[in-house]
Amino acid sequence: MALIVQKYGGTSVGTVDRIRNVAAKIANFRAQGHRLVVVVSAMSGETNRLVALAKDISAMPSARELDVLLSTGEQVTIALLSMALEEMGVPAQSFTGGQVHIRTDSAFNKARIVDIDRQRVDEALAQNKVVVVAGFQGVDDHGNITTLGRGGSDTTAVAMAAALKADECQIYTDVDGVYTTDPRVVPQARHLPRITYEEMLEMASLGAKVLQIRSVEFASKYQVPLRVLSSFEDGPGTLICSEDDEMEQALISGIAFNRDEAKLTVLGVPDQPGVAGRILGPISDAGIEVDMIVQNVAENDCTDFTFTVHHNDYAKALGILRQVCSDLNAREVKGDDKIVKVSIVGVGMRSHAGIAATMFRTLANEGINIQMISTSEIKVSVVIASKYLELGVRALHTAFGLDGEKEVSVGA
Amino acid sequence: MALIVQKYGGTSVGTVDRIRNVAAKIANFRAQGHRLVVVVSAMSGETNRLVALAKDISAMPSARELDVLLSTGEQVTIALLSMALEEMGVPAQSFTGGQVHIRTDSAFNKARIVDIDRQRVDEALAQNKVVVVAGFQGVDDHGNITTLGRGGSDTTAVAMAAALKADECQIYTDVDGVYTTDPRVVPQARHLPRITYEEMLEMASLGAKVLQIRSVEFASKYQVPLRVLSSFEDGPGTLICSEDDEMEQALISGIAFNRDEAKLTVLGVPDQPGVAGRILGPISDAGIEVDMIVQNVAENDCTDFTFTVHHNDYAKALGILRQVCSDLNAREVKGDDKIVKVSIVGVGMRSHAGIAATMFRTLANEGINIQMISTSEIKVSVVIASKYLELGVRALHTAFGLDGEKEVSVGA
Repeated sequence: MALIVQKYGGTSVGTVDRIRNVAAKIANFRAQGHRLVVVVSAMSGETNRLVALAKDISAMPSARELDVLLSTGEQVTIALLSMALEEMGVPAQSFTGGQVHIRTDSAFNKARIVDIDRQRVDEALAQNKVVVVAGFQGVDDHGNITTLGRGGSDTTAVAMAAALKADECQIYTDVDGVYTTDPRVVPQARHLPRITYEEMLEMASLGAKVLQIRSVEFASKYQVPLRVLSSFEDGPGTLICSEDDEMEQALISGIAFNRDEAKLTVLGVPDQPGVAGRILGPISDAGIEVDMIVQNVAENDCTDFTFTVHHNDYAKALGILRQVCSDLNAREVKGDDKIVKVSIVGVGMRSHAGIAATMFRTLANEGINIQMISTSEIKVSVVIASKYLELGVRALHTAFGLDGEKEVSVGA
Repeated sequence: MALIVQKYGGTSVGTVDRIRNVAAKIANFRAQGHRLVVVVSAMSGETNRLVALAKDISAMPSARELDVLLSTGEQVTIALLSMALEEMGVPAQSFTGGQVHIRTDSAFNKARIVDIDRQRVDEALAQNKVVVVAGFQGVDDHGNITTLGRGGSDTTAVAMAAALKADECQIYTDVDGVYTTDPRVVPQARHLPRITYEEMLEMASLGAKVLQIRSVEFASKYQVPLRVLSSFEDGPGTLICSEDDEMEQALISGIAFNRDEAKLTVLGVPDQPGVAGRILGPISDAGIEVDMIVQNVAENDCTDFTFTVHHNDYAKALGILRQVCSDLNAREVKGDDKIVKVSIVGVGMRSHAGIAATMFRTLANEGINIQMISTSEIKVSVVIASKYLELGVRALHTAFGLDGEKEVSVGA
């Protein structure tokens, strides 16, 4: 008789019929004797509808009021799901973020969970009820409604699981788990039964959009076993947990890629202390996040400075850099938004040399030029021209022995 | 510098444009130096949309969860209106029923307000903010969300005004005030600048659907000056207040009518003590509300017993009465759903005889037969065939000197 926290995303509860399906799934779990806390998102499309209403009123709507508005999306879902459960004879009780005391800081639109008072949940569980909690939302010390930012329902689920010391946190989504890479790009992509928190973090932050990154960090911090499953088909999904001896030590667990970046280079920067700060300071002041940064060794007292930003910030960053270039007496600014970042990820590479070399050789054999390189303990990322994405990822997938025996089918 | 509570209904905030208009009205009031607390309903259509979702899931949705669901409607409006105000440079802060501590009992779907903790409102007003409160909702002692039932936003506004000892509570609606009767029936209907609580209660309960009845009771109990105005055009509206010497003492303030009733009669009931209870007991047990009740004087140890119910309950009541009739050895059950109740209302009639006589003579002159009569201190109601509604109301309107000099225009 386990205590399980389940989270169903917007697609899984996108219609009344789907809400009924989710209720039936929950009823089934409960019949197996489990105690259940269910976290839900807004019905798919609802958050966008509400954002559009707000934008219609104000280009920069009040952050506090935006959270009051958006939090209604999940509130609708908890009510409907609880009704559906009761209709099936399963006692259930809904809780908004405020009612279950998901205490956050006061950073509206991107609040962070401070703690959760488990008392009301425990009371409802003791009454043999399924507890249905609104994801994505909380309440600050002044009683204001806050939201955790997009995808925050995953974080709510993991935080609930941590607070309740649940046996497992299950994230139901529209894919049936984590794959060695995107099966739409590599048909031989293999389903992974397990993956470590660290690998999942690298995969997630590199563009594998299965789980919200903060929820994985949270799960790692509190050692919550996290499972990604499909809400539309049965299967074990992928368990995200700590590295242990039983875990098969593949060198590389997966290949992630990110098409959303653009590259900017300042050429001929005078090689002086503080130059990097003078280039990136104005970028950061403009609210632009920088991902990879590479600075080449200086030649003739000059250096080249390259970094990547999100596509959406490309034009803005380019404008800023032109000004910076003239202030710094640098030679020239260049940009390229036809690039892609490809990364190999795996805890196994910690203890194995030559992984990076294999990666570079594999790409070279396909005639793919590497424009930037960046590494961490468990990943190697390269930037290549975006036209080589499929070719490069497939070659790497084969080179690192990740190909499955046959094509896999992916959840709806 | 007055403290004013304003309430805007669903039609007044039915679109983003209308919300902007309301914000502009509020900004204008504030510029005149008033402190403002604004209560809003859900955008028109929203409550029906949410109810339809619930009904799609369950024919009898959980009452608690229905309130969780419905309360989102007003929450959306408070957020959007606050955004619109801030966009105009007017500092504003929204409050849900729970946040402003509108404490109610736990009767989900039809909760009653127990008290309001004005502290948070006072704090926001002290910061020079417009306070925007979600109507229709509250919170019980266990932290559950409750709703006050349809039209409850009027009650929220009056309760806020009572708690804050506001100078006036203004209800903005789609009509520009209270009329001597429905202008769609009598084009000469006159706009009333003032009316007493008692008269308004009789008018409202008799079918003049301007204000929710509970809100008028509440205003009367706490002596809150209540004003009904149009949100679409300027004008003084109608002030509902206590009777005072300045008030023009018209004999009759208005003529109300109600098309929603049906009449049931049990004929030949043995004239014994307890018979009325044995007839109405089963009706009441079935949750059917009874309006007028008339029992004729007994002849030959038999009496006839007549009462009216809402149209919607007519068939059900008829079925129950047939059973009761046989149990009581009564002769026959008759029903008629082609009736209308017409009432003349006015505090002036307290001190004047002959009002009822004038009413009956006027109807008789038009050849209209009176089927039932019922009176209270400030009203006389009759039931007539529904085909005579317009004829009867117009004749009474003229007979009691209520006709205006020319046709009035009614708000959009």
